[in-house]
Amino acid sequence: MFVYPQTYRKLKRGPQVILPKDIGIIIAYSGADKNSVCVDAGTGSGWLAVGLARVCKEVYSYDIRSDFLAIAQKNKDMLGLDNLILKNGDVKKKIDEKEVDLVTLDMPESEKALKNVKKALKIGGRVVSYIPHTEQVKKYVQTLEKLKFSDTHVVEVMVREMMVRKEGTRPSTKGIWHTAYLVFAVKQ
Amino acid sequence: MFVYPQTYRKLKRGPQVILPKDIGIIIAYSGADKNSVCVDAGTGSGWLAVGLARVCKEVYSYDIRSDFLAIAQKNKDMLGLDNLILKNGDVKKKIDEKEVDLVTLDMPESEKALKNVKKALKIGGRVVSYIPHTEQVKKYVQTLEKLKFSDTHVVEVMVREMMVRKEGTRPSTKGIWHTAYLVFAVKQ
Amino acid sequence: MFVYPQTYRKLKRGPQVILPKDIGIIIAYSGADKNSVCVDAGTGSGWLAVGLARVCKEVYSYDIRSDFLAIAQKNKDMLGLDNLILKNGDVKKKIDEKEVDLVTLDMPESEKALKNVKKALKIGGRVVSYIPHTEQVKKYVQTLEKLKFSDTHVVEVMVREMMVRKEGTRPSTKGIWHTAYLVFAVKQ
Amino acid sequence: MFVYPQTYRKLKRGPQVILPKDIGIIIAYSGADKNSVCVDAGTGSGWLAVGLARVCKEVYSYDIRSDFLAIAQKNKDMLGLDNLILKNGDVKKKIDEKEVDLVTLDMPESEKALKNVKKALKIGGRVVSYIPHTEQVKKYVQTLEKLKFSDTHVVEVMVREMMVRKEGTRPSTKGIWHTAYLVFAVKQ
Repeated sequence: MFVYPQTYRKLKRGPQVILPKDIGIIIAYSGADKNSVCVDAGTGSGWLAVGLARVCKEVYSYDIRSDFLAIAQKNKDMLGLDNLILKNGDVKKKIDEKEVDLVTLDMPESEKALKNVKKALKIGGRVVSYIPHTEQVKKYVQTLEKLKFSDTHVVEVMVREMMVRKEGTRPSTKGIWHTAYLVFAVKQ
Repeated sequence: MFVYPQTYRKLKRGPQVILPKDIGIIIAYSGADKNSVCVDAGTGSGWLAVGLARVCKEVYSYDIRSDFLAIAQKNKDMLGLDNLILKNGDVKKKIDEKEVDLVTLDMPESEKALKNVKKALKIGGRVVSYIPHTEQVKKYVQTLEKLKFSDTHVVEVMVREMMVRKEGTRPSTKGIWHTAYLVFAVKQ
Repeated sequence: MFVYPQTYRKLKRGPQVILPKDIGIIIAYSGADKNSVCVDAGTGSGWLAVGLARVCKEVYSYDIRSDFLAIAQKNKDMLGLDNLILKNGDVKKKIDEKEVDLVTLDMPESEKALKNVKKALKIGGRVVSYIPHTEQVKKYVQTLEKLKFSDTHVVEVMVREMMVRKEGTRPSTKGIWHTAYLVFAVKQ
Repeated sequence: MFVYPQTYRKLKRGPQVILPKDIGIIIAYSGADKNSVCVDAGTGSGWLAVGLARVCKEVYSYDIRSDFLAIAQKNKDMLGLDNLILKNGDVKKKIDEKEVDLVTLDMPESEKALKNVKKALKIGGRVVSYIPHTEQVKKYVQTLEKLKFSDTHVVEVMVREMMVRKEGTRPSTKGIWHTAYLVFAVKQ
């Protein structure tokens, strides 16, 4: 089984990964399921791509860097995910797939991919972008509005650990406070 | 598509539901995927059961109250989830399934179900309990230890909304601070 | 005594107030004490002004609106704070005081007051601004840098309630997630 | 001036200290001010004691360990706080002061001090305890009830840093998630 944190410790890490906390919320809030066809970009180490491939029908994951795709290929192979297709390419220039259910974006200036995303999504399809800084969140949201996406929803996910020990029960002293904002929207 | 918050607004609610934020983390941290066979109890309104059924192979969801199962049945039907089997029964007394990948528990005194959960799980299988109060978290964790479950991990999930508006970008003033603690463990 | 939440419930509220959670962190992080002379603007309902006056030597609080000063006057009178001096004026145009220890700013475009703030502060004196939106935080921080303030430090304060009841101990379900960012800096 | 984090870096640390975030909320929520007479125990490194002495009239701080008092003495001297009186003693056995405004407790089994605390406080006076674990919070709250303290209020304080940098504005990746719960109550 693929479980946190055991399996994640075995996965290869190259570029900054998307953590399970964000993968979980992307799945639950986007409605990704066994029937979903997804486009993902950039692949990076492929953590989100494999997380989606484990619950979705097909995932097409793009990256402009072939060295990153090589890392993701190892994670794909380790988990035996034949429904994950890794592609060397730039979604800001072109997305081959049509009528997809979900597009996930983790890249600088992800708003520049939104025109192509809109063409790739079916009506009612959803796009999620993973954005660390507030300035890009704003630019991205403004582009969503210009392109008539609906139901824009921005969240940040915090998972706090509790320790249950002989001396008592308490939250962990330190932990992760921020990875990125998740911006959800729907194609009308 | 099943998306947050649109689809959730249409789902029936009877007893207190498990929110998408917790469903997402349960999926991501437990490693639930298309090959997973799950047992879920108590069904309640069935939000977690349908959330799991959408990404897993089979979900067997137990409740001792048939009025709750009737609500869950409506949600199952609305989403067309044939792989969700609703069962009237008490997992503290008996779990019919064997070699399952995941058991999810949302009930008072869930620690009393753990003996049966252990029998139902395959080795490496995972159990997650949704527990609102710290006292029960402690009792439950102590029972996990007695029964030799491993990798106990307790978290709480906070999802904070950001508002991007003409007057500026800022987190929402108010929001949900707590639903329940999630306790994960593995059968050895 | 002046205690939370009892006394706060009696204080008058006109414009949006600064909550005790932020007042406490402003005091603790700015080093305000019995020897401190403070300038505060805008007064608003005067909650921060009276909070400072209770622990500091003198507080000069400016507002451009006399109707707000009237509300603050009532709060000052109720608490008997002779060391709080309410002034009708605009700190963006002029601050009369010199060699002050602390300036607190709660107003739109607070960065436009920073030149006067710098003149009013003694070396080593501190300025704190209460800023709801990230865009203004950025503008304000950039102005601090231009004016050679040091030790810029931006925080947000979250106070979460725990409920200890017969049925168990748990955090409150809902609560306040955001009021404003607090930006601290030191005059060199 | 006494400012965060500069002054705090110079303060001596022996036993675990109470951080400025908690000191600030203790001051703001307890209504400590220039007229307040406080009792504090245990002194530890004296961070809370000096924090209170800077804004209050008099602070009597007790510790059973003279080595801790020696550390606190250095912090007192560094800040020149003549109104802080360090005392070697056990508040569970005896509190010399009467009609005090505020008592702060940071010690194991602080509920065992509450009988003496009640005698020391004036009517309307407030007691605050700093308690890391949920089990002790519960025991302590139950003792407050038995002794007829009113207005019990339990909180935890989280201060999250924001980074404003050339590449963008975002919360810090990691930070402190928990120090202790603060339990406030009033003597009737």
